[in-house]
Amino acid sequence: MPATIGHNFIAGGRSAGGEVILQSLDATTGEALPYRFHQATEAEVDAAARAAEAAYLTYRQVSPEQRAQFLSAIADEIDALGDDFVQLVCRETALPAARIQGERGRTSGQLRLFASVLRRGDFYGARIDRALPARHPLPRADIRQYRIGVGPVAVFGASNFPLAFSTAGGDTAAALAAGCPVVVKAHSGHMATADYMASAILRAAQHTGMPNGVFNMLYGNGVGEWLVKHPAIQAVGFTGSLKGGRALYDMAAARPQPIPVFAEMSSINPVIVLPEALKARGAKIAEELTASVTMGCGQFCTNPGLVIGIRSPAFSDFLHAFAAKMADQSAQTMLNAGTLASYAKGVERLHGHPAIHHLAGQPQQGRQAWPQLFQADIALLTQRDELLQEEVFGPTSIVIEAADAAELHKALAGLQGQLTATLIGEDDDLAGCGELLALLEQKVGRVLFNGYPTGVEVCDAMVHGGPYPATSDARGTSVGSLAIERFLRPVCYQNCPDTLLPDALKNANPLGIMRLLDGQNSRDAL
Amino acid sequence: MPATIGHNFIAGGRSAGGEVILQSLDATTGEALPYRFHQATEAEVDAAARAAEAAYLTYRQVSPEQRAQFLSAIADEIDALGDDFVQLVCRETALPAARIQGERGRTSGQLRLFASVLRRGDFYGARIDRALPARHPLPRADIRQYRIGVGPVAVFGASNFPLAFSTAGGDTAAALAAGCPVVVKAHSGHMATADYMASAILRAAQHTGMPNGVFNMLYGNGVGEWLVKHPAIQAVGFTGSLKGGRALYDMAAARPQPIPVFAEMSSINPVIVLPEALKARGAKIAEELTASVTMGCGQFCTNPGLVIGIRSPAFSDFLHAFAAKMADQSAQTMLNAGTLASYAKGVERLHGHPAIHHLAGQPQQGRQAWPQLFQADIALLTQRDELLQEEVFGPTSIVIEAADAAELHKALAGLQGQLTATLIGEDDDLAGCGELLALLEQKVGRVLFNGYPTGVEVCDAMVHGGPYPATSDARGTSVGSLAIERFLRPVCYQNCPDTLLPDALKNANPLGIMRLLDGQNSRDAL
Repeated sequence: MPATIGHNFIAGGRSAGGEVILQSLDATTGEALPYRFHQATEAEVDAAARAAEAAYLTYRQVSPEQRAQFLSAIADEIDALGDDFVQLVCRETALPAARIQGERGRTSGQLRLFASVLRRGDFYGARIDRALPARHPLPRADIRQYRIGVGPVAVFGASNFPLAFSTAGGDTAAALAAGCPVVVKAHSGHMATADYMASAILRAAQHTGMPNGVFNMLYGNGVGEWLVKHPAIQAVGFTGSLKGGRALYDMAAARPQPIPVFAEMSSINPVIVLPEALKARGAKIAEELTASVTMGCGQFCTNPGLVIGIRSPAFSDFLHAFAAKMADQSAQTMLNAGTLASYAKGVERLHGHPAIHHLAGQPQQGRQAWPQLFQADIALLTQRDELLQEEVFGPTSIVIEAADAAELHKALAGLQGQLTATLIGEDDDLAGCGELLALLEQKVGRVLFNGYPTGVEVCDAMVHGGPYPATSDARGTSVGSLAIERFLRPVCYQNCPDTLLPDALKNANPLGIMRLLDGQNSRDAL
Repeated sequence: MPATIGHNFIAGGRSAGGEVILQSLDATTGEALPYRFHQATEAEVDAAARAAEAAYLTYRQVSPEQRAQFLSAIADEIDALGDDFVQLVCRETALPAARIQGERGRTSGQLRLFASVLRRGDFYGARIDRALPARHPLPRADIRQYRIGVGPVAVFGASNFPLAFSTAGGDTAAALAAGCPVVVKAHSGHMATADYMASAILRAAQHTGMPNGVFNMLYGNGVGEWLVKHPAIQAVGFTGSLKGGRALYDMAAARPQPIPVFAEMSSINPVIVLPEALKARGAKIAEELTASVTMGCGQFCTNPGLVIGIRSPAFSDFLHAFAAKMADQSAQTMLNAGTLASYAKGVERLHGHPAIHHLAGQPQQGRQAWPQLFQADIALLTQRDELLQEEVFGPTSIVIEAADAAELHKALAGLQGQLTATLIGEDDDLAGCGELLALLEQKVGRVLFNGYPTGVEVCDAMVHGGPYPATSDARGTSVGSLAIERFLRPVCYQNCPDTLLPDALKNANPLGIMRLLDGQNSRDAL
């Protein structure tokens, strides 16, 4: 256990200036855990943002190799956290130990992926157009471009990934890789977990000689607004609700200097079950879907909240099997009392909708979440009914039946932006799916074939993003190595002496990276 | 001359539903030219945005080679516009014929650059992570990513580049290259010019078989708000004032679905004259700076509005020479009466500032703009005086003298975001400029050495962007091939059958493009 717990992390030190105390709770029992946290004061928020701003001046100049070593050192520290840590996370989140152990590996793996990106060097986007002194009517100057970090980044930890999308999670890893110091707003649902993770980052920063202020973390629910409005903060990463993400986006847009907000918010992740697949393996699909909807108590951004298919005997059989499977599922404990209350309200709203009826699930009551299955009239999609597309965070899904392929297509056209869409089909189904795929591409960040959207691979090609309201900026991803691009901006140099150029642009190409040289990819020195 | 002039361009046809008539004016004399324009109605704005939305479904699927042919065809049409066209542009803008001929070449060259980018294929950002079925504990799916156009883009033409940053200018070229149909709001200062250019685009679209609605254009000052708020519009490109750009940004951010706005707005483009350079060639620098400040009547985004150096006899000599040269300059006609009125007000505000004094220039009066030189107290920079950093669009610059290198550095730290910063120095000056460069990088999109910021090369490595208020989003550039990235977003495919994948991601790599394959750059087929 850390020597100090409950203090804010500012400029490499700890600070407990505030008098408001926040209590860590056991997610399963609701009882108080022996960890108390000092909510950050406005002065502490200012100090953290200023520390990040000061660190930026040094940290942005740290070589990519050194930054890679820093990220790898964080990964090592996280891997070394013991069973007591895993137990603590389990107590704060009610997630099982195996999940936390897996998520720990995902978190350290994510940091190491960004280390490899730094060593690969393509994040620089290095471009060189050499001078053309003899060009007529005007000569061309020597012009070179690469990308630098935008400045300090505010990161809002997610409730549902206490490790992989919180303190040392994807947004933090991407920002640190980009050369941007970070100020994390710790999620109130797992504050002690956050403390362990932040301490691991600080140890890694000290071992690798990173500047004080490269990482800071604040506790308290009121601090987010101060942080996003702080002039030192240059970008925001967020994973959470549509309401929360939109509020941050609006604050950031209203600043004297607006800043980008990458908020991953709301998605119902439609799964389209195609006719031949239902004929060939409807019962299996029902089983797999049930597992995907209820996995981790449905607390995933990519949880399949909408299942849609075309009317047929096979579809009816599938629907019965799906309802039966869902009815069989047990209640599970959610991440915290607030999440459970939201879930109960969401389920209640679905029960109250006249064009949605309940297919399966115990009445929602008690301290746990009961899986639920509903069926909705397809008109709700075509008419863009708001409630239908409102994400119910938890183990609930809604089935919709289309009369035919044309109605299916028309209904899907009514979808809002989504993180994912999934096609379940046999070869014969998919062969005719060109138009459907063209439609889905416009709606989502990721299209899956014969898989389930839960489980997001951390790799170069992943997109965990998509049009609004899935995210606040469809041009970003919050999972995978492309996530670094959210925190970079291009700068160019005209006729800059070689000695003053950054390594990525020097004639000798000392980093050995691929560059766009006079319009051609090249690793050559000049 | 086009057969029809003065009608809005909607879905490949022409529309004149409105009763408000706008008149094209001769910029030099103020007299009415024989061109009258129908301001678009709200219904016409809707029709144009819907036409772009409908065209997107087809146009986004058009192959990059076909899009390249479309862009090249536009370039050919523009190059073929005759002397009557050049004369018309000169009459509407008061810009000289040689400038318009040069700008025409820049505009067609820009379209051809994007054609080459489409053929090169790196804009796709294609990434492939192959399946790892044997990976433990979980197998990895096949995941592939590329980038698609975000959807219809609204483009606001600039006053000062009637060709290169208006109807068929950089934003339009970038959006069309990205696969995004365009709706242009024609600038009121050169509506007949816009008509010729739009007609050229339509002819190219017809010759190359592009869908109706791939390009649309609307007249009228009130139409911008309808356009930016229209749900079909997915991004905005703008070049103009801070006030105008910020208003569009705010509208876009307040939409139910917020959209990105790339507004290039306000920059005073500091030029730092270093001691040894002043000793070696102070008089020449004064002459070159005068030419840069007054070129094109100072109507460039990158016009050097601030010149700063360190107190010395050589600096005093430079200052006298600069003032004498500026005093010698003639008045020039501005783009339109509104621009002249703004310039006169800006000059008046500088005259009225107690810590700014006038060094050179005739009293501002009459129908032309008189070049002006002012000197400001350095405290205005360190104290972030608002007026000092407000761009005065026209042939005016302000000189600031620092006591020493430390004060220079401190003053530059007070700069807002800029498009450019320029260092004028001898080798001895530049050798010690590492820290200064590190500071300037944080402030600007482009750093120049021993050149002048006016004249922005259109190439792969150019950045015409920078932190706010230079632009509304420092992660973009509005000049150069990187401009295409503003209008692209990533999409990924998980376990997608090869036949359904886009060409950029197919196993055979039919486009022959460079892809990031399992973390390595490769043109290989799989």
